[in-house]
Amino acid sequence: MLHKRHIQAIKQMVGIENCYDDKAHLVAYCYDATRERYEPDAVVFPRNEQDVSAVLSYCNDQKISIIPRGAGSGFTGGALPVRGGIVLAMERYFNKILEIDEKNLIARVQPGVVNKAFQEAVEARGLFYPPDPASQDYSTLGGNVSENAGGMRAAKYGITKDYVMALRAVLPNGDIIRAGKKTIKDVAGFNVAGILIASEGSLAVITEITLKLIAKPKLTRSAMGVFNDIESAMNAVYKSMASGVTPVAMEFLDNLSIRAVEEKFHKGLPTDAGAILITQVDGDLSEQLDSALSILEQRFKENGCTHFKIAQDEQEAADLWFARRNVSQSITIYGKKKLNEDITVPRSALPELLSRIMELSKQYGFKIPCFGHTGDGNVHVNVMVPDPSDVENLKKGYECIEEIFKVAIALEGTLSGEHGIGLSKAPFMRLAFSEAEMNLFANIKKAFDPNNILNPGKMGLCME
Amino acid sequence: MLHKRHIQAIKQMVGIENCYDDKAHLVAYCYDATRERYEPDAVVFPRNEQDVSAVLSYCNDQKISIIPRGAGSGFTGGALPVRGGIVLAMERYFNKILEIDEKNLIARVQPGVVNKAFQEAVEARGLFYPPDPASQDYSTLGGNVSENAGGMRAAKYGITKDYVMALRAVLPNGDIIRAGKKTIKDVAGFNVAGILIASEGSLAVITEITLKLIAKPKLTRSAMGVFNDIESAMNAVYKSMASGVTPVAMEFLDNLSIRAVEEKFHKGLPTDAGAILITQVDGDLSEQLDSALSILEQRFKENGCTHFKIAQDEQEAADLWFARRNVSQSITIYGKKKLNEDITVPRSALPELLSRIMELSKQYGFKIPCFGHTGDGNVHVNVMVPDPSDVENLKKGYECIEEIFKVAIALEGTLSGEHGIGLSKAPFMRLAFSEAEMNLFANIKKAFDPNNILNPGKMGLCME
Repeated sequence: MLHKRHIQAIKQMVGIENCYDDKAHLVAYCYDATRERYEPDAVVFPRNEQDVSAVLSYCNDQKISIIPRGAGSGFTGGALPVRGGIVLAMERYFNKILEIDEKNLIARVQPGVVNKAFQEAVEARGLFYPPDPASQDYSTLGGNVSENAGGMRAAKYGITKDYVMALRAVLPNGDIIRAGKKTIKDVAGFNVAGILIASEGSLAVITEITLKLIAKPKLTRSAMGVFNDIESAMNAVYKSMASGVTPVAMEFLDNLSIRAVEEKFHKGLPTDAGAILITQVDGDLSEQLDSALSILEQRFKENGCTHFKIAQDEQEAADLWFARRNVSQSITIYGKKKLNEDITVPRSALPELLSRIMELSKQYGFKIPCFGHTGDGNVHVNVMVPDPSDVENLKKGYECIEEIFKVAIALEGTLSGEHGIGLSKAPFMRLAFSEAEMNLFANIKKAFDPNNILNPGKMGLCME
Repeated sequence: MLHKRHIQAIKQMVGIENCYDDKAHLVAYCYDATRERYEPDAVVFPRNEQDVSAVLSYCNDQKISIIPRGAGSGFTGGALPVRGGIVLAMERYFNKILEIDEKNLIARVQPGVVNKAFQEAVEARGLFYPPDPASQDYSTLGGNVSENAGGMRAAKYGITKDYVMALRAVLPNGDIIRAGKKTIKDVAGFNVAGILIASEGSLAVITEITLKLIAKPKLTRSAMGVFNDIESAMNAVYKSMASGVTPVAMEFLDNLSIRAVEEKFHKGLPTDAGAILITQVDGDLSEQLDSALSILEQRFKENGCTHFKIAQDEQEAADLWFARRNVSQSITIYGKKKLNEDITVPRSALPELLSRIMELSKQYGFKIPCFGHTGDGNVHVNVMVPDPSDVENLKKGYECIEEIFKVAIALEGTLSGEHGIGLSKAPFMRLAFSEAEMNLFANIKKAFDPNNILNPGKMGLCME
């Protein structure tokens, strides 16, 4: 519990209308997309960078925890105040696009701007911001940077870190810093922007983001390939990508995922297929797209594709993508509790990964529908627990997840391709990192935040 | 001077044939491309990662400086042992390409592999590693990563950091760490690979590098535009890049640079032109290249281009590029001492930057030929001092350089686009960074290297 005098002090800094400790606010800011709940002691809406600096400086002196928060759409508990403290909610005032610089193909935004709103604003000027996490309709760019969000277009266009040119941020001691530049090349000083990306709000509070834009490709076309078995589909993925074509997206659904969407939406999907791949290519000339699609068709068919369909218009393209967009909600037919993880492996390890997951499915007796961004090796694995009130069964579900992590790491993959570590994956960090690596993480944390006030208790950092 | 017992101890670790303190070795490893000289106390050639770990651990305990060294081709003194200590020369044993993984478009290399040798090895398999610093014939990939080397292709393909997927490295305490993954998406733990890039050998010794490759574009074409004045050329640069075409390279030479090459090589260059732009486009289809060149021609001509020439074959392309490749050696006709800096500004600030440099040229009375990578805003500025033995005049030259730095920073640019800070630019760090930012750099340094043994005295770090 935070002493009333601290609440009073912060109200004086930011204004009484921007600092709350009433039950309604504490409940409203106690959750995120994990659906776990931890109430903060207060919710503060900083009006500007000076407010952020004043609040951090005060809390650093008083050793009060600060949890920066965008939209609370994270899947790993990054925005949860697990040790109480103050939720620093950026949505109210830090929600402006400050500049779209068409001369340099750059934009400056505040961290509370919603990804989709930003995409629309730049596309209105013929420009393009590729990172498109599934949460794009509500997640904020500050959250995207803090978690290094990915998305479907990563196969061709990379992820959030590939677009962050510069940041402004406030350190726990209240110091305001700039990191990075508006230039492609900048090698003066340590790459502080690079380490703030994906730091899950544990090193500094981001107050401004400078993003790289590109020209919007004029044309896109989509296609779907149907495969008898998942191994063929996974072979087709990496062999296509290695042959010089770089599709914007290369998504897959396994048989369980296909059947779930079909059961829910009756779209005429091939329910007897082992897997489908849905892909998109883009460019400015139709010759480019024709050539790319023809190479993809060839690679797919060499690897067991029984049917290759190219969408002939926007409606057909939307139909192809419907299954992918609605798979996450559809698979709930297999169980009330979905333990979903976003492991990622090198593309050539996908066949082995999926085959091992199918073995674990048999061994543990859970249905494990898989789908996701195979173009970059990122698979959304969903261990479906029929009845989570059966505590033993739920425990078995988590054991199965741990086995899946071990498989991913053995295949040179990662615990998380997109969602981050936060709270949910913290227990597994030692599967992936040595003691030396964990110590280094702790030392980096101390270099920025010696009092451990920023988002404490996350990422499995050894800060006791 | 290093005590003999330390030399003995290290000889025992790495073998007597891999540790030297004789004059010949100390002289051979006392210089770099700055031509400054600082003799180390010993030169050590580690045979493997275990040797690196043993030497670092020992030197950390004994507080002996270690200076990691690739080819010594850096322009800012990054490899100079300014405080003596041990030069850790990676060239002898860490020179192998460990794996070219065509399935995942990835390569694993040791840090002593020469950039050009690596490019040739991957191109032999139809793959492509774009970063091409001017030093590519001799600079090593470890040095490229440590300085975050750029090059001509950055306008389209980015710089070294955009290709580093993972690193192995040894911390000053001897701990061996891995950072990053073979996957495009990886958000587990802090981005340690991101901060090791461009850290100039001051945080850890890199022992292995995993690099992203892409498919090699099948076609390239080159063109040159001639402009009456430099402002028109600079306008053409940023307007071209903003119009959706992304050339591989967009290089410029100003009038002084053109005249220098012509005087030296008699190639029929337009010596009365204010500037020329040399550009290259690439792709897999000739329609793409035709379209890109036609847009570039249009943008160039809208911005005062008086003559646009497209190379019709490889020989013509080589002729166009001849001037750019030989400009650096040619401008020496203007003075015995070249104070060359690699400032970078947002592209739209190029006209203003060049105009201010011309004013400074008049004010200080030095010829200042400029050329470089305008596609990414990176200008090689050369203050030509006729006679460096005239100490007053040389001092004026450095003053002029400082003014140029101030202009670059005022235009939201950086002290260094490619060369790093090292020794040469350390005095200017406070022009670009606040006290809070410098303190943060020092704290990051301490997190990795609490005893300040790795490449001490560089980057203007406040480590006293």
